Amino acid sequence: MINMSSPIRVTVWSEYRHEKNNPKVTGIYPEGIHGAIAGFLGKQADITVRTATLDEPDHGLGGSVLDETDVLVWWGHMAHGEVSDEIVAKAKTRVLEGMGLIALHSSHKAKIFTSLMGTSGSLKWRMSTDKERLWNLMPSHPITQGIGEYFEIANEEMYGEPFGIPTPDELLFISWFTGGEVFRSGATWNRGSGRIFYFRPGHETLPTYHQAEVQTVITNAVRWAHTGVRTEADVCPKSEPLEPLPEA
Amino acid sequence: MINMSSPIRVTVWSEYRHEKNNPKVTGIYPEGIHGAIAGFLGKQADITVRTATLDEPDHGLGGSVLDETDVLVWWGHMAHGEVSDEIVAKAKTRVLEGMGLIALHSSHKAKIFTSLMGTSGSLKWRMSTDKERLWNLMPSHPITQGIGEYFEIANEEMYGEPFGIPTPDELLFISWFTGGEVFRSGATWNRGSGRIFYFRPGHETLPTYHQAEVQTVITNAVRWAHTGVRTEADVCPKSEPLEPLPEA
Amino acid sequence: MINMSSPIRVTVWSEYRHEKNNPKVTGIYPEGIHGAIAGFLGKQADITVRTATLDEPDHGLGGSVLDETDVLVWWGHMAHGEVSDEIVAKAKTRVLEGMGLIALHSSHKAKIFTSLMGTSGSLKWRMSTDKERLWNLMPSHPITQGIGEYFEIANEEMYGEPFGIPTPDELLFISWFTGGEVFRSGATWNRGSGRIFYFRPGHETLPTYHQAEVQTVITNAVRWAHTGVRTEADVCPKSEPLEPLPEA
Amino acid sequence: MINMSSPIRVTVWSEYRHEKNNPKVTGIYPEGIHGAIAGFLGKQADITVRTATLDEPDHGLGGSVLDETDVLVWWGHMAHGEVSDEIVAKAKTRVLEGMGLIALHSSHKAKIFTSLMGTSGSLKWRMSTDKERLWNLMPSHPITQGIGEYFEIANEEMYGEPFGIPTPDELLFISWFTGGEVFRSGATWNRGSGRIFYFRPGHETLPTYHQAEVQTVITNAVRWAHTGVRTEADVCPKSEPLEPLPEA
Repeated sequence: MINMSSPIRVTVWSEYRHEKNNPKVTGIYPEGIHGAIAGFLGKQADITVRTATLDEPDHGLGGSVLDETDVLVWWGHMAHGEVSDEIVAKAKTRVLEGMGLIALHSSHKAKIFTSLMGTSGSLKWRMSTDKERLWNLMPSHPITQGIGEYFEIANEEMYGEPFGIPTPDELLFISWFTGGEVFRSGATWNRGSGRIFYFRPGHETLPTYHQAEVQTVITNAVRWAHTGVRTEADVCPKSEPLEPLPEA
Repeated sequence: MINMSSPIRVTVWSEYRHEKNNPKVTGIYPEGIHGAIAGFLGKQADITVRTATLDEPDHGLGGSVLDETDVLVWWGHMAHGEVSDEIVAKAKTRVLEGMGLIALHSSHKAKIFTSLMGTSGSLKWRMSTDKERLWNLMPSHPITQGIGEYFEIANEEMYGEPFGIPTPDELLFISWFTGGEVFRSGATWNRGSGRIFYFRPGHETLPTYHQAEVQTVITNAVRWAHTGVRTEADVCPKSEPLEPLPEA
Repeated sequence: MINMSSPIRVTVWSEYRHEKNNPKVTGIYPEGIHGAIAGFLGKQADITVRTATLDEPDHGLGGSVLDETDVLVWWGHMAHGEVSDEIVAKAKTRVLEGMGLIALHSSHKAKIFTSLMGTSGSLKWRMSTDKERLWNLMPSHPITQGIGEYFEIANEEMYGEPFGIPTPDELLFISWFTGGEVFRSGATWNRGSGRIFYFRPGHETLPTYHQAEVQTVITNAVRWAHTGVRTEADVCPKSEPLEPLPEA
Repeated sequence: MINMSSPIRVTVWSEYRHEKNNPKVTGIYPEGIHGAIAGFLGKQADITVRTATLDEPDHGLGGSVLDETDVLVWWGHMAHGEVSDEIVAKAKTRVLEGMGLIALHSSHKAKIFTSLMGTSGSLKWRMSTDKERLWNLMPSHPITQGIGEYFEIANEEMYGEPFGIPTPDELLFISWFTGGEVFRSGATWNRGSGRIFYFRPGHETLPTYHQAEVQTVITNAVRWAHTGVRTEADVCPKSEPLEPLPEA
């Protein structure tokens, strides 16, 4: 076990495809979704940020990047299938060792998220004119500090239940949508030594990651997910007895 | 959703390798571990059993076998890596649709189990002269009916904590071992529409599956894991609004 | 431990005050809320029902009533404080022994519910013209059988988050309300050997308990909460060692 | 909601009866069990400690003491029944508002603990020559930092399963006892805005609270249980709609 010192080393990963192919998305996120998230996280004194994207070699997660990452933020959507199984396996092992994972929005279907959940990640969806109101169920949780009873996003993609996840360890937010649906939009799980937070908002054609409350939640989540601990993920040791055993 | 009628259709799967290669194991389980388990389950009026093994085509799980299985019992050990990823994916989908899964002993490292857990399945182990005493934590649970405060297995392989699993939905048994270790030896999880039970006992060189209490627990678990329900595992439907939306 | 035979013995308890004091409520529930619920439960071949109300001696729960009850259904609202602590303590003990409890609507503040939860039961509320839509999160659960993706109640009192409960073992329903709120409207917990289900709908001035889906959920819940098991609630036995101890 | 500044204000409460009546206990804990615990906590730069005992007016918890307490440590045994219901109700409300609670050893039967759990707190017990070995199930948890795979207490009272608690949110320690029993000896729960940790060791006739690992766990637990948040415990507000409602 290694106690690592501050600052928190965050890697923000995104596909970075919509931003290059869709002028509307480019206009909202000229530096990419990863760039926008890295932008507000990087302003925090206790956080250092790097970014990584799908089309870089090893998706930007090769070499020592994962080893040097305390919390990984993930945004994927149209190209989940292009993420290499080998990189996913390495990232999953790092989570089990103690790296935090913040899975955003359409990452409900990212391999790194579904492989840690063991479920489908399935949900209902609709891109329309819905308003989203996120109700805060745990006002004492570190992730909801600075958020009041609820906050609203004037326009967001709708995600609806049933959401194909295991029962969360903690359910922090439930969303109300204009069109009549509800969704577990903020939830945490422990997996091995790692902490995982799923946070729903963030459709690429909307300026969601520029909204103050969304930035607050993600920043809080980074601090919460940073355990400062690293354990071995999978050792299965043969173990000597600690008490006398009978003769064979 | 389909409500399926009784009896419960169980498929008992085992590697069936130790039984062919190790005369000691052959002596204890001449019909294979799958054969021993199918033997006692098949005596129940409400259960019909078939078996399947690693070296059959598609590991015995091809065609309509999984579709016609309500509860899958799994025992693997030395050849987890030889189980095809494609068959594992099909079996996992069936669990998410509502098939029950009973994962036995060394199946803590079976792909079907770890892929549904999202964790390593790691644990401590020792094959020696330990006695195992399983304490019953939930005397009202369907799986523990007929089991008193505890039961003992005179000699079993030791498995010790920490066990690389997510927090169980229900923790039914904790084991005490002579050599000084403890283990969460009976636990349940929901994944999608499926119910999963992990049960620790069953080293291949010991007659564990011939013991009455072990048979009672597995038989109870089969009935508990049978939901009688089948849902689609992963649909992600586009969904029309149920309430009026504002103009774009 | 006693295995009790069918049928399931249900006691439906309600305050029976609004029905006597408010003509609107009398019109909807001429036999009382308990009478309406007992009416539809009593039509089931596997269920026998009796009723009990606040103003009876011992609130109708004295003598052997609780001993002879497998599942207790509870509806209280304006007179929680008039329920005797002694009767609550007896009912709580019976839950820990294995009696099921279905707590309905305003029973979020009933002593029997909050004393088993350990929390406040606090929530937001509004009696207005809201529609309630209950989304089904666990389509494979016994309590949701016969309910599709969701069902609607044309007009109900609004209950909103945060709801002062411990994290449910299983979250079955989340409600959407017209006025913009959400609520965990169906949830389960184990306490001792007993199973507890909280179900939100049922304001006294509305005909909610006459609606088919609501009756289906309550009927399913009674069957689910019936464990058929009775254990001692609280024994704290001095226990002899099962293995040799060192000399003092 | 009030963000409170450091240091963490801890109140250590104990019955302080055995220490006055039993010379053996007096010898081990001349300043009382509360005094011993306050002693090692008070050496931490980020913690300020006061103590309170049963026989003081209001058990030492009157006036503003609870308001000024961030984390309450509780040790009771022979006189649970003498603790006033009114003080317990106040302390419980403070937990729901965000005060941490560390319940030690025989406090499994303290009113403040069982009223927050909603269960009996029942367990098996034996005062004999057992050794206790506490296995660390969550090496990444803040409460287990500085504890390795396990630690041993050379002699402790045995507590055995089944333990009458709700499923813990997190299970940190399972104990092995020489005499053949197991016990969930370290576990956490959220209740309202408060965090609760139950920790098993600490029989009054043994020097358990002088042992380094026990002190480390309790010190870690105090820091973990300090949320720095205060919410209202129970408000049940009438709430205006956030979206337009239909006409009545």
